[in-house]
Amino acid sequence: MAQASNAEGSLASGNFLTLRDMQTAGSYTVRPVAWVHSDLKRRADAPMQGYEGAPDARLEVVEDFLQALDGIEVGQEIVILTWLHEAHRDVLKVHPRDDRRIRLTGVFATRSPDRPNPIGLHRVRVLAIDERWIHVQGLEAIDGTPVIDIKAVLERSNDS
Amino acid sequence: MAQASNAEGSLASGNFLTLRDMQTAGSYTVRPVAWVHSDLKRRADAPMQGYEGAPDARLEVVEDFLQALDGIEVGQEIVILTWLHEAHRDVLKVHPRDDRRIRLTGVFATRSPDRPNPIGLHRVRVLAIDERWIHVQGLEAIDGTPVIDIKAVLERSNDS
Repeated sequence: MAQASNAEGSLASGNFLTLRDMQTAGSYTVRPVAWVHSDLKRRADAPMQGYEGAPDARLEVVEDFLQALDGIEVGQEIVILTWLHEAHRDVLKVHPRDDRRIRLTGVFATRSPDRPNPIGLHRVRVLAIDERWIHVQGLEAIDGTPVIDIKAVLERSNDS
Repeated sequence: MAQASNAEGSLASGNFLTLRDMQTAGSYTVRPVAWVHSDLKRRADAPMQGYEGAPDARLEVVEDFLQALDGIEVGQEIVILTWLHEAHRDVLKVHPRDDRRIRLTGVFATRSPDRPNPIGLHRVRVLAIDERWIHVQGLEAIDGTPVIDIKAVLERSNDS
């Protein structure tokens, strides 16, 4: 037991693994591919679900990824994944829709933004495309939210 | 102009930012919340889309996140986000469905696993839950794929 304890101690204080190494072991790095521009400025202003009057928004696509837009057409629906940068990653249970009358529920059984990896999932219609700008209908994400992926909707499947 | 150029140069060669700092600046870290166990062992064996005969699979949920499952029920559909760890992140255009007769298309207009942030999106039905194991129907992800999020399906909305 003493030996195990020493081993852990020397690992923690050793020169081979930094705190940062340990924090990122078994983890993956995502980079923004676009940014949300929206009149929704604060999390408190965001509707509880996308279908409750979310405003139209514009995505500003990062220059490096412009080629990846080729084929997206006005009028079609797309799936947007966002990084909900104001979410709390240590929350495992919530009252759904912030309604305390609903019992505490595991975040994986909800659409709460608070969750271990705070990724938002949005299905929106493309209103216009203008070079690096995509205008979309009804996006419940606040101004400045990073977009981490854009995908086609699979019409024939149960997959989106 | 020269001044701007110098400023950039000194940032790149300075002692304050390491390569790792620069690689992770403006990026976010995701951690696996579960792992896929499947008979699909290689990417080449995976069906092109989820609706083309993907096998049932089991998700092994990481112990730290078990509480977050509370409320998921057998028979319901859930959304699973995966980290497609064998994907190529530097690919911006693909022939959809790997069919060279289809013209090169931006990955954001497709469901290609190859994309800047290789996140897979799957809507599946829950067949059984047994402590840290969730059995799901028809998941097109290979054995060992990290799961990075699990979400409720929003039945009333266009949001999933």
